[in-house]
Amino acid sequence: MSHEDELAALARAVEAQIPFNRVVGLQLGDLGPTETTITFEMRDELVGNFARGSLHGGVISAALDVVGGMAAITAAVAGGDVSTLAERFGKLGTIDLRVDYLRPGVGEKFTATGYTLRAGNKVAVTRMELHNDEGDLIAVGTGTYLIG
Amino acid sequence: MSHEDELAALARAVEAQIPFNRVVGLQLGDLGPTETTITFEMRDELVGNFARGSLHGGVISAALDVVGGMAAITAAVAGGDVSTLAERFGKLGTIDLRVDYLRPGVGEKFTATGYTLRAGNKVAVTRMELHNDEGDLIAVGTGTYLIG
Amino acid sequence: MSHEDELAALARAVEAQIPFNRVVGLQLGDLGPTETTITFEMRDELVGNFARGSLHGGVISAALDVVGGMAAITAAVAGGDVSTLAERFGKLGTIDLRVDYLRPGVGEKFTATGYTLRAGNKVAVTRMELHNDEGDLIAVGTGTYLIG
Amino acid sequence: MSHEDELAALARAVEAQIPFNRVVGLQLGDLGPTETTITFEMRDELVGNFARGSLHGGVISAALDVVGGMAAITAAVAGGDVSTLAERFGKLGTIDLRVDYLRPGVGEKFTATGYTLRAGNKVAVTRMELHNDEGDLIAVGTGTYLIG
Repeated sequence: MSHEDELAALARAVEAQIPFNRVVGLQLGDLGPTETTITFEMRDELVGNFARGSLHGGVISAALDVVGGMAAITAAVAGGDVSTLAERFGKLGTIDLRVDYLRPGVGEKFTATGYTLRAGNKVAVTRMELHNDEGDLIAVGTGTYLIG
Repeated sequence: MSHEDELAALARAVEAQIPFNRVVGLQLGDLGPTETTITFEMRDELVGNFARGSLHGGVISAALDVVGGMAAITAAVAGGDVSTLAERFGKLGTIDLRVDYLRPGVGEKFTATGYTLRAGNKVAVTRMELHNDEGDLIAVGTGTYLIG
Repeated sequence: MSHEDELAALARAVEAQIPFNRVVGLQLGDLGPTETTITFEMRDELVGNFARGSLHGGVISAALDVVGGMAAITAAVAGGDVSTLAERFGKLGTIDLRVDYLRPGVGEKFTATGYTLRAGNKVAVTRMELHNDEGDLIAVGTGTYLIG
Repeated sequence: MSHEDELAALARAVEAQIPFNRVVGLQLGDLGPTETTITFEMRDELVGNFARGSLHGGVISAALDVVGGMAAITAAVAGGDVSTLAERFGKLGTIDLRVDYLRPGVGEKFTATGYTLRAGNKVAVTRMELHNDEGDLIAVGTGTYLIG
């Protein structure tokens, strides 16, 4: 398999083999060295405020946590091979997460983006953003991850 | 209705009318002036790490966010009537949330507890804890909420 | 006084009339609608790790807290007059602050920058960064402020 | 030296050899396995709001950061010898810190207390509280530390 095929295989495993990722409907996009993206679509069961039809805070947290974790390990193995990435994924753990809810999560489709600020050999720190399909910034987050 | 019956009716509404709370299976317990509790049971779809069979971080965040929010408004209307509580609930919004993941979320049943540290007329700050059925502290959180 | 002179007068007051800002040696720079900056210089008494000669975490927190607060009120009164800004400053309070320490705070001079993510009429949320004079990103922060 | 004398010697070093700790006037108290305390006294230069005569947020952050760090390494070496504690102190680094400012920091004397929630061999998580001499809870914090 090519590097790209291997990365895609890992992404499909993260989507399919983590039950709660399936519940939210997370779709991994880019797993680049400087930026990682995840998308998901609005569905009735993701709603937290039925009057506004907006996302539940827990859905937003879940998406930001996952995209931050993927950014953390992708940065940690930048230049390395995908088997190392898969191995890192097995050891990945969120230490702490801060989420700032800026605007109601209304929209049809959402994109979470993760950026790595610090990637040591034990701990990584990332910033995350969630936008809707109109480009509104719904939420931001900061996460600290154990990566080795 | 008695005060207790009104509180119970509000709790049932929070459980049933917020779709994502149903996905997680949140059951509101005490809505006391100093402490609020929520319980939920492990189910396959809440898993985040299939090797360990532990809760997804997003499930933990969702439970802590909700119990903190309930603590915030319960403290804000302490001594007031339940219709005021329901009205506050309609205006409740999480501003920010920090979650610290301390141990893998393994267990059959989980209890989230919220304590209010500050309750002004605009903003409340709460601390939250998540324990499993063996009394292990799985995660803690701190939340800031807009309450009026 | 012109708008610029009024802004400069407020900045001098923040620097001079807040004792602990003088201890750190904070110098307010731009108070623009989208970005606020503060600078300070390394001095022996700001050191937290004498082996590395790096800034104490409390100095970093103080600078990020102040630049975030200035960004919060500047955004809140964008387009308004400076007396409104001064009035807002009198009511400004930090609700919570997260700081991520990314690299040792070594350098001769440091620049803290604040960006406003959300500015309601009660609460503002800002992100902050601290760079040294070589452009290294030393720390980032996120703050929630009561502004009215 | 006895164990207690060695601990006291380390505490004096932390107070005296870290310049910014001297600026704040931090006095290390108990370095127990479950709880660590630090005290400091109000002085003019620690003021952040001259109208109220209350502590600057950066002073509060600095005290909470230091007491959390001491709690982290004390828990990590519980049962071990003091030379191990001193060695750990040399490697101690704050990864991230959240501070919630609950009430104005008014008072004559303040006590910061740190509790360890998680102490692995790489990372520790602590909760901290700041009280004034009337027992008012001024601020709380949560910190993540690199300890090895």
